[in-house]
Amino acid sequence: MSPWPTALAGRIDEHHIDSALLRDNPLKDPSRRPLWVYTPPGYDAEPERRYPVTYLLLGYTGTLANWRNHIAYRRPVPELVDEIFARGEAPPMILVFVDAWTTYGGSQFVDSAGTGRYHSYLCEEIVPWVDAHYRSLAGRDHRALAGKSSGGFGAAVTAMFRPDLFGAFATHSGDSLSEAQYIPHFLMAARHLRAYDGDILRWWDDFRSRVAFTQEEDLRLLELLGVSACFSPAPDGTPQLPFDPRTGALRPDIWQRWLDRDPVRMVPRYADALRAQRAIWIDAGTRDEWFLDLGAQAFRDALAEAGVDDSVIHFELFDGGHHAVEYRMPPALAWLAQRIAPA
Amino acid sequence: MSPWPTALAGRIDEHHIDSALLRDNPLKDPSRRPLWVYTPPGYDAEPERRYPVTYLLLGYTGTLANWRNHIAYRRPVPELVDEIFARGEAPPMILVFVDAWTTYGGSQFVDSAGTGRYHSYLCEEIVPWVDAHYRSLAGRDHRALAGKSSGGFGAAVTAMFRPDLFGAFATHSGDSLSEAQYIPHFLMAARHLRAYDGDILRWWDDFRSRVAFTQEEDLRLLELLGVSACFSPAPDGTPQLPFDPRTGALRPDIWQRWLDRDPVRMVPRYADALRAQRAIWIDAGTRDEWFLDLGAQAFRDALAEAGVDDSVIHFELFDGGHHAVEYRMPPALAWLAQRIAPA
Amino acid sequence: MSPWPTALAGRIDEHHIDSALLRDNPLKDPSRRPLWVYTPPGYDAEPERRYPVTYLLLGYTGTLANWRNHIAYRRPVPELVDEIFARGEAPPMILVFVDAWTTYGGSQFVDSAGTGRYHSYLCEEIVPWVDAHYRSLAGRDHRALAGKSSGGFGAAVTAMFRPDLFGAFATHSGDSLSEAQYIPHFLMAARHLRAYDGDILRWWDDFRSRVAFTQEEDLRLLELLGVSACFSPAPDGTPQLPFDPRTGALRPDIWQRWLDRDPVRMVPRYADALRAQRAIWIDAGTRDEWFLDLGAQAFRDALAEAGVDDSVIHFELFDGGHHAVEYRMPPALAWLAQRIAPA
Amino acid sequence: MSPWPTALAGRIDEHHIDSALLRDNPLKDPSRRPLWVYTPPGYDAEPERRYPVTYLLLGYTGTLANWRNHIAYRRPVPELVDEIFARGEAPPMILVFVDAWTTYGGSQFVDSAGTGRYHSYLCEEIVPWVDAHYRSLAGRDHRALAGKSSGGFGAAVTAMFRPDLFGAFATHSGDSLSEAQYIPHFLMAARHLRAYDGDILRWWDDFRSRVAFTQEEDLRLLELLGVSACFSPAPDGTPQLPFDPRTGALRPDIWQRWLDRDPVRMVPRYADALRAQRAIWIDAGTRDEWFLDLGAQAFRDALAEAGVDDSVIHFELFDGGHHAVEYRMPPALAWLAQRIAPA
Repeated sequence: MSPWPTALAGRIDEHHIDSALLRDNPLKDPSRRPLWVYTPPGYDAEPERRYPVTYLLLGYTGTLANWRNHIAYRRPVPELVDEIFARGEAPPMILVFVDAWTTYGGSQFVDSAGTGRYHSYLCEEIVPWVDAHYRSLAGRDHRALAGKSSGGFGAAVTAMFRPDLFGAFATHSGDSLSEAQYIPHFLMAARHLRAYDGDILRWWDDFRSRVAFTQEEDLRLLELLGVSACFSPAPDGTPQLPFDPRTGALRPDIWQRWLDRDPVRMVPRYADALRAQRAIWIDAGTRDEWFLDLGAQAFRDALAEAGVDDSVIHFELFDGGHHAVEYRMPPALAWLAQRIAPA
Repeated sequence: MSPWPTALAGRIDEHHIDSALLRDNPLKDPSRRPLWVYTPPGYDAEPERRYPVTYLLLGYTGTLANWRNHIAYRRPVPELVDEIFARGEAPPMILVFVDAWTTYGGSQFVDSAGTGRYHSYLCEEIVPWVDAHYRSLAGRDHRALAGKSSGGFGAAVTAMFRPDLFGAFATHSGDSLSEAQYIPHFLMAARHLRAYDGDILRWWDDFRSRVAFTQEEDLRLLELLGVSACFSPAPDGTPQLPFDPRTGALRPDIWQRWLDRDPVRMVPRYADALRAQRAIWIDAGTRDEWFLDLGAQAFRDALAEAGVDDSVIHFELFDGGHHAVEYRMPPALAWLAQRIAPA
Repeated sequence: MSPWPTALAGRIDEHHIDSALLRDNPLKDPSRRPLWVYTPPGYDAEPERRYPVTYLLLGYTGTLANWRNHIAYRRPVPELVDEIFARGEAPPMILVFVDAWTTYGGSQFVDSAGTGRYHSYLCEEIVPWVDAHYRSLAGRDHRALAGKSSGGFGAAVTAMFRPDLFGAFATHSGDSLSEAQYIPHFLMAARHLRAYDGDILRWWDDFRSRVAFTQEEDLRLLELLGVSACFSPAPDGTPQLPFDPRTGALRPDIWQRWLDRDPVRMVPRYADALRAQRAIWIDAGTRDEWFLDLGAQAFRDALAEAGVDDSVIHFELFDGGHHAVEYRMPPALAWLAQRIAPA
Repeated sequence: MSPWPTALAGRIDEHHIDSALLRDNPLKDPSRRPLWVYTPPGYDAEPERRYPVTYLLLGYTGTLANWRNHIAYRRPVPELVDEIFARGEAPPMILVFVDAWTTYGGSQFVDSAGTGRYHSYLCEEIVPWVDAHYRSLAGRDHRALAGKSSGGFGAAVTAMFRPDLFGAFATHSGDSLSEAQYIPHFLMAARHLRAYDGDILRWWDDFRSRVAFTQEEDLRLLELLGVSACFSPAPDGTPQLPFDPRTGALRPDIWQRWLDRDPVRMVPRYADALRAQRAIWIDAGTRDEWFLDLGAQAFRDALAEAGVDDSVIHFELFDGGHHAVEYRMPPALAWLAQRIAPA
């Protein structure tokens, strides 16, 4: 394996989209957003051919640049997937790399008074734009979503919200089972916030004034602040924590808004959308630091309960944690490609 | 400080009580129970004098022998308290060391179809026995409870249940705020139970067949099994876990039975009993492994909400964890003695 | 299993010995020392019978009281051994519980200008006293040593120093392979000592002024100070650390004095004494926090190199750490009894 | 701060160099190597101006692509330095990004029979090439080295070896004080290698056959194998570990070869070279996982001992560990620029 970046057999086009829906977003984040589109090897040589498309969503704090990060003895997802297509091991597919970063580190791919209309941006702006500019197979049977962590969450809930647009998804270590994912973090956060008189906005001011992530609690507090902005903003957009920052005790009304976004609890409400999926990939590491292995199991159990057919599901718990598991994506993308490619 | 056990100025009498209430307990644990009574220096020299009494309750898995365990450079609680009395730094007091051990490691000092009638044993058998055999001040104003961890829980809830019997208590790192104390452990337990097909009774069989506590999960699983026996037994006494052992997800109906035993949530229902207390000591370590620092804060906040006067409360979070904090008890016992001693 | 202490089939006599050798010891520790002697079931009924003897040495910070500490679902060593003898599963044996505690927590069972003459106290005062007061088999073939951690070290080196007195030993998680055991601790200690300007005596003053072991570094620093007093005192007895407290870098001359006490490095010098042993038990946990599993392996390899016969050695690495492994002693004591009992 | 990569005010040129010295290297690694050169803002506008140069060396497993890795809320070193120059906060300087990756993850920037002639490649090929192709100030007074971890080591030892070429260096969390840096890792490695019968080459075969870094010991074993190839190869180039893989015990002769490469121990031998440096920056995090904070202190103390003037040294221990501390480099580069820029 070469230690240096290698040329792709396919191609990544780097675009920018001026989003009307994100204009005047509450955090004043840029409405001109980067978007990358990968076309597989052969795309230019077969000018009549149309391709299935998978939209790739990033985890919390992720931006498009992350897809090119290099770790020794590992290779970035685009290089690995490209190699799969180059070898003909999966039907060729267009990949769309979506960026939904916000000042708080993410949008959870939902519409929110706290962050902006990132769900609509994805479904109503990016998808039509891709179909207009690329030779995609422009139907839900040939359109999938995939992502890790918050990106896996985004993949799952977007498919639930819009089964008319998406017919398959892969969620890797995806947010799920809120009590498992979040409550231990609320408790740790309550302790950390003692140094800030229980006021997370005082931490936020501190965080922005210094080098990020030099305090061990930074990532945890950032995520809780950001998800509060996504899931439980006040009417004026202010993030509201679902726990008492003095004790970690749940605030039932706000917590309920988080539970309403828990994929496990959403399954019954979106059972039709889920039964309409052609392919669902779920995996997580058995030692996931957010207990998303338990979340994956609970989500999978809920799908069974809702009558989703076993034949469309790939479920797997692997030995590992939450980090450095991007290598799980390429095989899932190949699996999706086989299921959303035209017969 | 002598490294070896030192003679007490007072005296510990070791008794056994044949409990009628514990006869035929569901776990077939002994109904003949050890009981120790400490009389302070001067007790024998003043044959007319009567003394206030504090009942000391043990933490989970505790038995009376623990009170004599020696750790280097530390001294057991009885020696430390005895020294306080010997120096005249607190009014002399009788101490009663209660043993409520069960096969599962504890009783939480409640009456339960899963373990036995340990609350009644304490209130209806031990207290009268002590008053009959010792020169106690036999009124609630001069009777207190104290304990650490499950013993602190027992102290708090026994005072709530029986304000006619007890007028003061100290809870050190006491069980409190159930979501903080337990949910992280449910999640870890769900992972551990994968090796036992999700069946905690299979773990229990394994645990009893080998040297105890040689597996890191032993203490956690023991406690969850035992508290299930105490708080949420089936009608036939079988312990029922408040979580799905496959995912850690809460089982709302069983979990509610645990919440009903959460001191924080009990406060409003027992507000009268709490307002009637003459002294309440609450402390916990800021790094408590069961997040009982958060529980202590929540309990203290609930007392304020219920109108318990600040003047009867000592509240303190100290730098430390859950273990090896027995040195917190002697000053609390001295503080209690000052408040329950006759004027 | 009863959760409460159970009566022994044999008997423990609690003595005190006035040691001439420890009088005027440099730390002004008591020269009147406790000593316990266990006689097995049947000892009184067979007044002519003589018994082999094993001397039990405690780990660092240990005092005799530790032998009676109770942990839930476990039983103290004396109870477990007594049960073995009561069942006739091993030849009956006298056990002598030695206390060599010092102000710094231990003596390593050596003679030192920093602590006192604890090696001589054991060999020249305790052994003759036991032989004079009990029906022991007063020969080296029937006399063994056993201990854990520093006690295991004491067992091994005392047998090396005095093969005329001792013919067998058991070392459980015994100090060994100094670079593995100590160097990581020197490094951590150097960091901790930043708060004390690199002066361990400033830490020592602090330690004695407050509740012991409430700072995470306490045990580590205590041990390093104490072993320095045992192994590398200045001529006036002052402990000298074998590392630069500013960087953790080794001080070669002082470190060499520690290496001279490393059982692994002592083996070639004491090969005759070791080849004369009738039984050597070595074990350690694979996750020992002092890497004594590696030390056990190195010691065992050195014995092979020195020509000690495999047939006299029991070697075992078990799944576990350094703590709460006292349950390893009873089977080793039974094994020793079989080898030092008269034919 | 923009979450996305931002355009530089200066420019990075990406080159490849065909190295004659690396041809036929023992690991058959590519002799055609990438090299990046950054020119500061204004470089093109002032065609007569010459600039000081700093050579940046990567940590273990590093490749040039790492310089562009994005972490949320952080910015890559080139962007941060570029901004310093763009703001005029330091004299403009050329930066040369050196890649010395090998199959084992690194070269330690030394010449070795186990890996290749990476020291010579840097000094005899890269430096002349840069001076020939860029308007550098081609003298040692205007040439510096900088790096983190193994890169900091490389900076320090290269300056010691070749004071004729380099007159300043910065070592961030740089390898130093071998017993602190390595011995704890030898011990952990010995444990890990039990699963490979003590044969690190069996681990290496396993490592190459699967996704890298999915086992927790991977990074540790890779580094120990690789540094053995760099520092202690057999005559045929085979890496020789400096410890017994069965026990972690040091192998004195091989270990001595590592000590000969310890910057702390090299100081006396290279005192002239060090006294000739114009600027030396040393820093490390107080919780460095390789104890390089202790190494930094020991190195700094050795410089004082060798008579290096305090005025040329910047020394700092900061709150932090070994990872994610790249933000320390830009201020150090600015500091170097001020000291190696022409007056």
